[in-house]
Amino acid sequence: MKRNLYLNVQDKEAALENYLDALGEIQTESEMVSVTESLGRTAAEAVFARWSSPSYNSCAMDGIAVVSSRTKGASEKNPLLLREGEDYLDVDTGDMILPPYDAVIMAEELIETESGDGYEIISAVPPFANVRAVGEDIVAGEMILPSGHEIRAVDISAMLSAGVRTIPVRKKPAVGIIPTGDEMTDIADVPDTGPEDGRIAETNSWMFDGLVRENGGIGKRYDIVPDRPELLEEAVLRAVRECDIVIVNAGSSAGRDDYTVHVLRKLGTVLTHGVSIKPGKPVILGIVKGKPVIGLPGYSVSAYLAFREFVVPVMNRFLLSGGRAEEKIRAKLTKTVMSGLKYEEYVRVKLGLVDGEMIAAPLGRGAGASMSLVKADGFCVIPKNSEGIMAHEEAEIRLLEKPEQIGRTLVVIGSHDIILDVLNDLMMESQSGMRLSSTHMGSMSGLIALKRRETHIAPSHLLCEEDGTYNEAVIREMFPGEKIVLIKGVRRRQGFIVKKGNPLNIRTVADLTPEVRYINRQKGAGTRVLFDYLLKKEGIPKMQITGYEHEAATHMSVAVAVQKDNADVGMGIYSCARTLGLDFVDAASEEYDFVTREEYLDLPVVQEFLRALRSREFLAKLEELGGYTAEEIGEIRKIHNFLS
Amino acid sequence: MKRNLYLNVQDKEAALENYLDALGEIQTESEMVSVTESLGRTAAEAVFARWSSPSYNSCAMDGIAVVSSRTKGASEKNPLLLREGEDYLDVDTGDMILPPYDAVIMAEELIETESGDGYEIISAVPPFANVRAVGEDIVAGEMILPSGHEIRAVDISAMLSAGVRTIPVRKKPAVGIIPTGDEMTDIADVPDTGPEDGRIAETNSWMFDGLVRENGGIGKRYDIVPDRPELLEEAVLRAVRECDIVIVNAGSSAGRDDYTVHVLRKLGTVLTHGVSIKPGKPVILGIVKGKPVIGLPGYSVSAYLAFREFVVPVMNRFLLSGGRAEEKIRAKLTKTVMSGLKYEEYVRVKLGLVDGEMIAAPLGRGAGASMSLVKADGFCVIPKNSEGIMAHEEAEIRLLEKPEQIGRTLVVIGSHDIILDVLNDLMMESQSGMRLSSTHMGSMSGLIALKRRETHIAPSHLLCEEDGTYNEAVIREMFPGEKIVLIKGVRRRQGFIVKKGNPLNIRTVADLTPEVRYINRQKGAGTRVLFDYLLKKEGIPKMQITGYEHEAATHMSVAVAVQKDNADVGMGIYSCARTLGLDFVDAASEEYDFVTREEYLDLPVVQEFLRALRSREFLAKLEELGGYTAEEIGEIRKIHNFLS
Repeated sequence: MKRNLYLNVQDKEAALENYLDALGEIQTESEMVSVTESLGRTAAEAVFARWSSPSYNSCAMDGIAVVSSRTKGASEKNPLLLREGEDYLDVDTGDMILPPYDAVIMAEELIETESGDGYEIISAVPPFANVRAVGEDIVAGEMILPSGHEIRAVDISAMLSAGVRTIPVRKKPAVGIIPTGDEMTDIADVPDTGPEDGRIAETNSWMFDGLVRENGGIGKRYDIVPDRPELLEEAVLRAVRECDIVIVNAGSSAGRDDYTVHVLRKLGTVLTHGVSIKPGKPVILGIVKGKPVIGLPGYSVSAYLAFREFVVPVMNRFLLSGGRAEEKIRAKLTKTVMSGLKYEEYVRVKLGLVDGEMIAAPLGRGAGASMSLVKADGFCVIPKNSEGIMAHEEAEIRLLEKPEQIGRTLVVIGSHDIILDVLNDLMMESQSGMRLSSTHMGSMSGLIALKRRETHIAPSHLLCEEDGTYNEAVIREMFPGEKIVLIKGVRRRQGFIVKKGNPLNIRTVADLTPEVRYINRQKGAGTRVLFDYLLKKEGIPKMQITGYEHEAATHMSVAVAVQKDNADVGMGIYSCARTLGLDFVDAASEEYDFVTREEYLDLPVVQEFLRALRSREFLAKLEELGGYTAEEIGEIRKIHNFLS
Repeated sequence: MKRNLYLNVQDKEAALENYLDALGEIQTESEMVSVTESLGRTAAEAVFARWSSPSYNSCAMDGIAVVSSRTKGASEKNPLLLREGEDYLDVDTGDMILPPYDAVIMAEELIETESGDGYEIISAVPPFANVRAVGEDIVAGEMILPSGHEIRAVDISAMLSAGVRTIPVRKKPAVGIIPTGDEMTDIADVPDTGPEDGRIAETNSWMFDGLVRENGGIGKRYDIVPDRPELLEEAVLRAVRECDIVIVNAGSSAGRDDYTVHVLRKLGTVLTHGVSIKPGKPVILGIVKGKPVIGLPGYSVSAYLAFREFVVPVMNRFLLSGGRAEEKIRAKLTKTVMSGLKYEEYVRVKLGLVDGEMIAAPLGRGAGASMSLVKADGFCVIPKNSEGIMAHEEAEIRLLEKPEQIGRTLVVIGSHDIILDVLNDLMMESQSGMRLSSTHMGSMSGLIALKRRETHIAPSHLLCEEDGTYNEAVIREMFPGEKIVLIKGVRRRQGFIVKKGNPLNIRTVADLTPEVRYINRQKGAGTRVLFDYLLKKEGIPKMQITGYEHEAATHMSVAVAVQKDNADVGMGIYSCARTLGLDFVDAASEEYDFVTREEYLDLPVVQEFLRALRSREFLAKLEELGGYTAEEIGEIRKIHNFLS
């Protein structure tokens, strides 16, 4: 087994500084564009006015043009009569003022004489009153925009008004993107049913293409290069000729097939191989023929982070831009995040504002969890040499989402059901600008979050084993003296998700013999509570269930494990089984409700949630998904549980 | 004189609400686009995963694949030997895991046997350890994006990984832009020397085109329509056929040529003519053949504001978007802003962070001052029925600039010199991301701002009449007991700016006879102090100067007034005379310095300013402008003036 070694894993800052130093002064190029086509581009030089604007003295108001010196002495006691044609001209806004006229009196201030032959005025007018003098807005020779300014709509009209028609803007850097790997298939060649076993649809290059555009460059994707060093050499040399910056993805790690670093060493210099960030460690910073060539990791989250931390600063060099400063806020974490000491770790979080406090719910941490990137509002960065951040502590968050959007977010922490996605969709579809952000931590964790005022709503389906009721009992126990309400949700069918045709003929927990591979849910999940309850009722010890320790975080993950034969059976809801074409054996009917504080009911986000929940569209969607009934949906039950 | 009347000037909110109601449900259209081309578009429907990702069980680490059930019982006391080919397979990240293998042990945790024939392990491995299970990232059927989501790079790769190749996105609304007016000339037809007298380069339509694009639409510019109602009718009907929204600019006011409202009434319905915002009052909200047709005012600032307040909300209807919520901050105003009771007034401001406090310096308020729009960082909105906001009070600011940029701004309030633009350009050109934001209020106002900690730097050229020195005397007087420093700037020549050849033969203030039209600077300007000093020295009363009350705010404005014959002479600096090809009669040499607090010297923005000030590029630029000497430039003089 031959593996590479990371020669020396470097700190991010040191690696970047060292790299930018080595790249030296970059020859940035500019190109001339028409001002009318310059929106969003960056001025390469300062822009100076060629003309003054206005270009002549013009009337700033509707009224009459007069000769200011002839109005001297007018007063209430001694009104001055002005006659049309002799003493004044009717003028409208924008009309040209020509000598001898040099001032304008507003229409609103005029008193018509009784005979109608003119106006009386009762005060003198200073020169240039109500006149937009030549150059009042823009003076020829004035600097309109400095170098490096990003051009907006208002800049375009100002430049045109000043006679500027073309300007030099910074050329967008061309970023070559080289996907590599024998196992990769171009998305155009992937069968409609999905990649064949062992093959992966190559999608990172399209993310890079988007990131390059988002950061002001032009992406140039190359064909996938198979795992042969000589082909990669060829591809890198071609890209270096054709582009300003080159990305190689992946082969940047230290596995047996990861020869990118060897190729770059052969063609040029490698300054860094491996940086101490997580995800994102396998980065290669190289220079080939004077051009930056960067090896990025294969996992999508690692690739995204490494792009952000290394490719963007290099692009900014070409754009001569300091880049967008990251917005940061402080937020309270909903759960403890542990971290190793060796890396600076980037934990994706969802954000929401609850009771005036910014709340951050950590998302999945896998380097390949691209959905966690889609769902993230920001990153919580845990420094090197820190063991992590405790739940309910404040941490600094680097924002990916706009702060104003976070204020319009309904925070939902608790049990998972796919109807939460449907409700979010219904909220987004309306023009409220509001959205629902759900974090799946199980019913009990949701109620704890509500207790700590870290969520607006906690979806819950907690069975009281004593009386068979749902949710109310545990709320009374957990929230003494507090005003809690239950927003009634759905009744849903829970049961065994099994393969089509139920080949192992599973009917009850008693059928879960040692040959049957079960897939379980995580601790604290209502579904696990239900499963444990069923086992207990039948007197079956947990140890006897094969796969009891094999956990999945959502109903859909359970279903897909069964579909793909990672397990034979798991507990879950009907709609998930149906979505994947699996069979379903009914085991229980349970109440899935939304717990909130009474005081939150008036919040606009909760009102919008109720609107979506009670809508006809939502009922239709439940029908379509199947396995739900919704007789009490949207009803509100106050649980005022005052201590006596 | 026939004028229109605004039938009933409405409040902005009421007018908009009424208009959106009248427009009713808008039939938004969607179009299919390739996911790879969907960056920045808005999802018209929720997007669901077609495949799971990963699509097979794959190795999450470099290491060996094992059968988890066979590792049971391994411990430090009882290590288990694994043999290659029998018990394990070498695997790299991403490799497929096939039965019977169901778990991976990381390379780092392996201990090679002495004989080299395998590894010893000292703990059991649970099923699916270090395995990325099918669907771990994305589960088929899962909602990837809700409706209304704006698509980013990370969304693109997630969709592609889930087998989604095309998606419906909301069609961009087409916005027709009709410029009108006999006096307007298409920018393509304006002579290279500038518009002829009485003619105006039509530039608003290009601003609208940019604003439409900035807000997610497609702009469609039509030819300029002359002031003939029947031609406007034709143009509106055509645009209504071809576009979703139509803008008519201008003719929306109540002047004699403003017939837009009549045309729209004839073709359809006019709901509003005139709203109580300033600038921006002359707005027409109409509906023609079911399509929104909006008349916007002619002045650029009014046009911009009215677009923002009325066209953007209508565009958001088509995009089914709540739009970007405006970011707001609170800031302390540097000067009093008075306002009429009848209008909601939008005052443009420049922002900066001084001593941890957000400072807002009001800019020019003219409706045609497009440069004030270019320079603005935000709007201070003064409500209807308010008389204004006092200096040093806090006010709410609606942001146009990113908050992080404001933190990287050097605030400069005080005397004007075009070298401030040059210094800003040099700061922007570097990659610091910092900029200089200058407000021209005269030397004295700048020092007052510094005293109040409302500016980082106050450029000043205040003459001490007693000893002929500059700046130091007034600083000692104004800042007792405070640590102030003078950053030495330039010596510059002040004199009379006169027409080419000096036809009136002006040499000293004594030559300013009543026939000579002078143009003055505003009160508090160092140049006015100098002029008053020269008059006093010669014993000439101010009253004797024709045009003493005719004021301009900058040296360049004085120069352009002379160039365009609004005046015969004014005082100003050499470089401005030279820029406009005018003659210059030397009157004095003065010291133009930068006053700051000692504690500000260490701020990164001040350090960056000093770098620019002391740079070779700046000296070269001074040489080019002419009229400056810079022997002490960048030197720092401490003025520690402790009270004794």
